[in-house]
Amino acid sequence: MATLGPHRWGKSEVRVSKIHRGEVADEFSDVTVSVLLEGDVAAAHTEGDNSEVIPTDTMRNTIYGLAQEHLTKDLEGFGVVLAEHFLSRESVGQATVGLAERVWQRETANGFVGGGSVRRAARIVRGRETGTRGGVEGLVVLKTRGSAFSGFPTDEFTILTEKEDRLLATSITAWWEYAEMPGDTAATWGMVCRSMIDSFFAEPSASVQHQGYLMGEAVLAAVSEISEISLRLPNQHHLDFDLTRFDMEDHGIVFQPVTEPYGDIALTIRR
Amino acid sequence: MATLGPHRWGKSEVRVSKIHRGEVADEFSDVTVSVLLEGDVAAAHTEGDNSEVIPTDTMRNTIYGLAQEHLTKDLEGFGVVLAEHFLSRESVGQATVGLAERVWQRETANGFVGGGSVRRAARIVRGRETGTRGGVEGLVVLKTRGSAFSGFPTDEFTILTEKEDRLLATSITAWWEYAEMPGDTAATWGMVCRSMIDSFFAEPSASVQHQGYLMGEAVLAAVSEISEISLRLPNQHHLDFDLTRFDMEDHGIVFQPVTEPYGDIALTIRR
Amino acid sequence: MATLGPHRWGKSEVRVSKIHRGEVADEFSDVTVSVLLEGDVAAAHTEGDNSEVIPTDTMRNTIYGLAQEHLTKDLEGFGVVLAEHFLSRESVGQATVGLAERVWQRETANGFVGGGSVRRAARIVRGRETGTRGGVEGLVVLKTRGSAFSGFPTDEFTILTEKEDRLLATSITAWWEYAEMPGDTAATWGMVCRSMIDSFFAEPSASVQHQGYLMGEAVLAAVSEISEISLRLPNQHHLDFDLTRFDMEDHGIVFQPVTEPYGDIALTIRR
Amino acid sequence: MATLGPHRWGKSEVRVSKIHRGEVADEFSDVTVSVLLEGDVAAAHTEGDNSEVIPTDTMRNTIYGLAQEHLTKDLEGFGVVLAEHFLSRESVGQATVGLAERVWQRETANGFVGGGSVRRAARIVRGRETGTRGGVEGLVVLKTRGSAFSGFPTDEFTILTEKEDRLLATSITAWWEYAEMPGDTAATWGMVCRSMIDSFFAEPSASVQHQGYLMGEAVLAAVSEISEISLRLPNQHHLDFDLTRFDMEDHGIVFQPVTEPYGDIALTIRR
Repeated sequence: MATLGPHRWGKSEVRVSKIHRGEVADEFSDVTVSVLLEGDVAAAHTEGDNSEVIPTDTMRNTIYGLAQEHLTKDLEGFGVVLAEHFLSRESVGQATVGLAERVWQRETANGFVGGGSVRRAARIVRGRETGTRGGVEGLVVLKTRGSAFSGFPTDEFTILTEKEDRLLATSITAWWEYAEMPGDTAATWGMVCRSMIDSFFAEPSASVQHQGYLMGEAVLAAVSEISEISLRLPNQHHLDFDLTRFDMEDHGIVFQPVTEPYGDIALTIRR
Repeated sequence: MATLGPHRWGKSEVRVSKIHRGEVADEFSDVTVSVLLEGDVAAAHTEGDNSEVIPTDTMRNTIYGLAQEHLTKDLEGFGVVLAEHFLSRESVGQATVGLAERVWQRETANGFVGGGSVRRAARIVRGRETGTRGGVEGLVVLKTRGSAFSGFPTDEFTILTEKEDRLLATSITAWWEYAEMPGDTAATWGMVCRSMIDSFFAEPSASVQHQGYLMGEAVLAAVSEISEISLRLPNQHHLDFDLTRFDMEDHGIVFQPVTEPYGDIALTIRR
Repeated sequence: MATLGPHRWGKSEVRVSKIHRGEVADEFSDVTVSVLLEGDVAAAHTEGDNSEVIPTDTMRNTIYGLAQEHLTKDLEGFGVVLAEHFLSRESVGQATVGLAERVWQRETANGFVGGGSVRRAARIVRGRETGTRGGVEGLVVLKTRGSAFSGFPTDEFTILTEKEDRLLATSITAWWEYAEMPGDTAATWGMVCRSMIDSFFAEPSASVQHQGYLMGEAVLAAVSEISEISLRLPNQHHLDFDLTRFDMEDHGIVFQPVTEPYGDIALTIRR
Repeated sequence: MATLGPHRWGKSEVRVSKIHRGEVADEFSDVTVSVLLEGDVAAAHTEGDNSEVIPTDTMRNTIYGLAQEHLTKDLEGFGVVLAEHFLSRESVGQATVGLAERVWQRETANGFVGGGSVRRAARIVRGRETGTRGGVEGLVVLKTRGSAFSGFPTDEFTILTEKEDRLLATSITAWWEYAEMPGDTAATWGMVCRSMIDSFFAEPSASVQHQGYLMGEAVLAAVSEISEISLRLPNQHHLDFDLTRFDMEDHGIVFQPVTEPYGDIALTIRR
């Protein structure tokens, strides 16, 4: 004879991001949440009776729904709201909420850098071919304003709506060719990164492609030894999560960041 | 002066799965697709003119839309359909489609094992406490029939619809306690895995919780030395991808597998 | 005032592999081990007194040292030997040993497949260029005999010794060009994989490069539609772990598999 | 008939770190290098003739050997030295060297933070049990002085030598229990991280255990609302790479960082 021992259920790896709109500057939260419940659900296991099994999909939705009002820089505070929400159901005996927030560094009123690991890169070829390239990988940037995407062609598979001002995030990989070697390669590397960051935050764009071109232009203007630069700009999508389905107003500030699939933009800018 | 060099855009890591319904047995495809286009989109970069920039979101949708009719075990054939679809737009000069299919092993008419790496595990404690546990990690199973989820409680955050027959996939992690050590631990490990696999495919379930309980029962029935078994069963969600948005019939056979978030079910079954 | 609460120390992710030499066929074990100890080491934390702190490096060495005699297909048995070894030291109050074994499928007397996830791949290009490639990723093979590496050039940085018979393991990535499309691409994919596997196990080689060339030849001989095949064969190194340092005989059957760095061999074979 | 097409060989993911000793402050480099060669090695593939096949093990050794003199903050410069070294062998027609440097932020004369992604964490439990924990994950710290490990017990498996001053690096995971909630949890989180960082760099230690205890003490002293803190401190080993094997002096400044195995230290400090 088998008997049921300890059991719990929940939703893990729920990614939620939120823009905290300010008069002068925006704040940004980027949090991964998990929920685990314990309670009177033995019959679900032994008899297939789901009458007390809150679906894990509902847990996910609840996180987005409550984030609009309650997700602030008080991470523990948001966790308490979630835990108490689930505990309010009589059959739930214990709720555990885990939260992990990616740390972003403010660059401008609406711009942030970080949330990842940046690496300096280089590639040296000698022999039949020859060349020296500098590079950067994992330079993650995000802005809450100053990016549009509209005027695109449509067909029967088009769902995307036009946006005049959207959140834009990418993890920059850039490789540039040195026509001649600069005296101080470390300082030059810093200057290339700085040029890209400053351009990204200062210049509004009509697409990732447009943003990338502006960044490449900025690098060529700043560093005379570079003859061309190639950028790869994966679009780190932050999808709208339609809160109106929950009979709520949707203020357009709560997002579902997704890792896959991602828009994959690549371009080269030459002198 | 900057000029635009080579450039391309696309969508990467689009995961699509499909059930090929058969009279006797189902086939299953689990494919990750990427699309990269090149063409007359220079103005998008230099002037922000998006009139020829097919959105990468549309590329994603197209993959799901065309999968319903065209995704078969001829992987290259599906790639050709996709490449030619995108090439049919005049401004596109070249289309590259990459595909990678996870390989599943058939177990039953509607059941598959694999798509991952299975590991045998053990945990030995000696001293103040003592105990020996056997385990398995990464035992991935999927069935195209024989799983339901309905009768669950609803609230303002419920979106999930009830299903009487759904695709179910999980990566089993199991740990069991040996009350006494079997003579041949390797053979016993094989017997535990076999019991779980056979139970998973033979027994219809009303939930992941219910399926797990049945599996635990089967193990305790098969191996007398085991006193209790704990299962962790992350739900590898295969979301419906609503094809009716594309003015198509939706046959309920095309899915979007997602890695995150996931339902996280854990339970212990004791003798 | 601060006081010390629970504390433990150990070594995690110790990878050890072993060939079990047989008269007719070899067995192979590929295990990752962790050790955690608890005991009378409070003074190490509060006063920096290390007199009872078994170095984690010693834990690692012990795993390799005891593996030569005690690592068998009884995974739990090896764990017990390790736990009791550490517990025999008076200051240790509890020892916990975790083990995870990669599962390999036997192919021949000295050959194994598996230990990873195989994926079928394809790449379709249409437009200015055109071509269709089939591929496979993650086809992991290992043989305990039939691979040599000797006669190589030496310089001041050479440490490697010549070997006439060594363990060889690799994760095959292969891409092939179809000059014309076969009638059944799925069957053809299976035939390419089978040709590579059979060649790898049947043909002794003088290097990874040599092994790869033989595999490419076998594929071209088996499938007439393929015009060329490119192989990438990362050498999954299994380093000797010198047991003579422990005043033991070294039978040459215990290895330290390493993930990084790895030898990276790539070649194309054409008709 | 098969013929050999393009082919190359090399070593990938060679991790090398180096301390640049200064009078006042140290610099630190943490680089991953790959080498790929092309040349006259066709016979190695077709006939098993290794007379021109530089072993990839030798490539690895060369990177460590040349790093002692040539690895500086001029990353491209080190790449050129490596590429030209390999190209100097007559049979090598082309050498490609790839380099990626983890970026560390200076904290003190001998201390660095970074090389990874830090996340703020929290865990809320409500119901039968209740509690609120704050946490941090991925807080990576490294110091080039101020850490010892000696006086440990030895046995037949001991290889490790005693060190009075070694490089110490870890990725801090910390979880603390709030006895009462602070008014500003975000500020408190920053204070906990700052206390650990300051303690790590200011206080010499006799072991990771000792270092961890000092850090826990510092947090309890700084934040009155915290009743206990648990630390997990994986030792990010930087192994000595014995250069004397190459008939060179070894200055003790070149290291081989390894990901696995790692020393795994955990402790709790209470008020």
